[in-house]
Amino acid sequence: MLNYTIKPLENGLENVQGFFCGATNVGMRPDKREGDIAFIRSKVPCDISAVFTSNTFQAAPIKHFQKYPKDFKTDFILINAKNANAMTGKKGIEDIETIFDTLSSKMEVHNPVMSSTGVIGYRLPLEKIISAFDKLDFNAKNSDHAARAIMTTDSFKKELAYKVQLQNGESFNIAAICKGAGMINPAMATMLCFIITDADIPKSDMDTLLPNAAEQSFNRISVDGDTSTNDTVMLFANQQSDAYDKHAFKEVLEKIMFELAMMILRDGEGASKLVAFEVRGAKNIEDAKKASTALSNSLLVKTALFGEDPNWGRIASTIGASGIACNESKLTIYYDDLLIYSDAFRELDKAREEQAYKIMKQESYKVTCDVGLGDAAYTSYGCDLSYEYVKINAEYRT
Amino acid sequence: MLNYTIKPLENGLENVQGFFCGATNVGMRPDKREGDIAFIRSKVPCDISAVFTSNTFQAAPIKHFQKYPKDFKTDFILINAKNANAMTGKKGIEDIETIFDTLSSKMEVHNPVMSSTGVIGYRLPLEKIISAFDKLDFNAKNSDHAARAIMTTDSFKKELAYKVQLQNGESFNIAAICKGAGMINPAMATMLCFIITDADIPKSDMDTLLPNAAEQSFNRISVDGDTSTNDTVMLFANQQSDAYDKHAFKEVLEKIMFELAMMILRDGEGASKLVAFEVRGAKNIEDAKKASTALSNSLLVKTALFGEDPNWGRIASTIGASGIACNESKLTIYYDDLLIYSDAFRELDKAREEQAYKIMKQESYKVTCDVGLGDAAYTSYGCDLSYEYVKINAEYRT
Repeated sequence: MLNYTIKPLENGLENVQGFFCGATNVGMRPDKREGDIAFIRSKVPCDISAVFTSNTFQAAPIKHFQKYPKDFKTDFILINAKNANAMTGKKGIEDIETIFDTLSSKMEVHNPVMSSTGVIGYRLPLEKIISAFDKLDFNAKNSDHAARAIMTTDSFKKELAYKVQLQNGESFNIAAICKGAGMINPAMATMLCFIITDADIPKSDMDTLLPNAAEQSFNRISVDGDTSTNDTVMLFANQQSDAYDKHAFKEVLEKIMFELAMMILRDGEGASKLVAFEVRGAKNIEDAKKASTALSNSLLVKTALFGEDPNWGRIASTIGASGIACNESKLTIYYDDLLIYSDAFRELDKAREEQAYKIMKQESYKVTCDVGLGDAAYTSYGCDLSYEYVKINAEYRT
Repeated sequence: MLNYTIKPLENGLENVQGFFCGATNVGMRPDKREGDIAFIRSKVPCDISAVFTSNTFQAAPIKHFQKYPKDFKTDFILINAKNANAMTGKKGIEDIETIFDTLSSKMEVHNPVMSSTGVIGYRLPLEKIISAFDKLDFNAKNSDHAARAIMTTDSFKKELAYKVQLQNGESFNIAAICKGAGMINPAMATMLCFIITDADIPKSDMDTLLPNAAEQSFNRISVDGDTSTNDTVMLFANQQSDAYDKHAFKEVLEKIMFELAMMILRDGEGASKLVAFEVRGAKNIEDAKKASTALSNSLLVKTALFGEDPNWGRIASTIGASGIACNESKLTIYYDDLLIYSDAFRELDKAREEQAYKIMKQESYKVTCDVGLGDAAYTSYGCDLSYEYVKINAEYRT
């Protein structure tokens, strides 16, 4: 039974006590009026937990973050779009230090951190970025601008906030902004997510709950199977509220991160469909995960989704190619609740094919593969592959 | 030093002594006049070696093949396009037996085998296929018809033949037909390849040389990273010539299979570019192979090739995401001979960018990544990803 209630709030980050946020445009991305540099700051130093990309070539802002001592507190994050500051070597880290030296000469900050997204392999435009410090209002609360400034190929801003009301009458807030549309893979991807809370959460809980929620959300989505150098999820807690309940916080954090992950998928470059791939009945969880991920990454499956073609053979073939323990006679495949393949029923009759077409015309549905060999299950989430994806990614950068 | 000379021959399979081939149309694919059923037969029983898909759900013709005793000889193969006879269970194998029972009542055949490609999950149209036996001229030598009849989404036929002249004056012939354009992955894919020879090759050499040549050719190409249920490479030898030299045979077999693999890649669905991805300086061969394969499979790399965008960051990011041992400061990346990334030289100046554009406009070029950690190297081959790929695969089947 729930020991709390939650209420969705407008205006994202603005709801969390003691945090400020905003953005400005310094000319890195002239096309977007909302800005290309954003900040989030807290009036008191925050605890911070982070999950970073599994890519070996972690970007400079991640390496800069990791230079701070374990359990450091921060009150400031600077975020830029258009330039990933990745594959920039030591210079990339020194550039961040230069930026924050300048910031420190203008205002008091504790252990500021940075996060970047955009093209790989170019130094940050230091003068432009530093010019932001004269333009930004550090006492602003403008979540909309911050959420829009971190977008790259995103077609809509991704922003959420919830008020959590505990049974004892106390309440806390969690809010987040997020960006991501391509280079999205089950091992995170070109996505940045910043979550802030005023809950009185202990740091040790942050460190366990954040990676766990990432595993349930961002690590289960695939747009194109590519894992970027910059993927970052950060949770900032300034403990400005007295309220906290671990169970409630865990559930709401998972809810927020799952909803953001689905927003990324819906905004998947050129994507028009969101499909859940559940593999169940697998011998073990590794097999379930491997097959489910193979489905959400397969080009042939993704193009069939786009073509609204109930070609279950591509689903079966992908399961068979994934290397998991499986057996043609034990496998069953469903589109939503429609059984579309089993040993007893192999060929599609007209009636079922018609039903399958209807299901595939939906914006969102589920493909279930029951391997029939055990109890393990895993669900990942994917989208279709359209002409638009190719167009976006052939023309990006130019 | 070469102890033989080779000469390319017109008319493919027709050059090999003691073999017959042809095709007819039985209405499975009304759009192709060249036929949808092909056969190859030998006047005497042949030795046969085969390499099959690594997909767990091997198609019925592969299972039927495997029911014969080890080292069986055959004099007949029937090949159909449009229907893969995969995921069809025991009935799929029984259908093949029914087809060959009928054939046996019309002519003497020894251990006939079948090979199929097309849509997964439908029973073969038995009556149509059996009707071929009244239409086919089993004494024909029509390699062109056979090569065209096995095509699916292929845009051109794939057929090769060589005469091999040994120093002692003797000669033998090798010829092949092949199909494949999509569902092509480094673990073979929806590709069928039939190689025939009149060389006096011992069966034991066939069994070692064929898988070795497949590893050098078909196992190194990727169109879309999908591995099908039907992939097959077969070598038939009827020993009608007295000539044989192991070294010469090995080299010519590898040459034929590599040339066919490159034809498949050039015909990659919607592809306009053929790119070699060499990863060298890796710690071990597993790492070199893993990174090279990740490059030829990456959607972001493939769309950048299509966009002719010298965005080496996507190459670097894919190497970093592949999970191999690597280090940002040791890595170097080349497009053909142009150094495009190294620790000393990270940002692209205009002159180099112009050169890179020129290289990427070519129909074929090489991307080399030197990991700088060891001696291992591996090359795989890929193509770009275009709008056309999506169109072909969204509309296939309908």
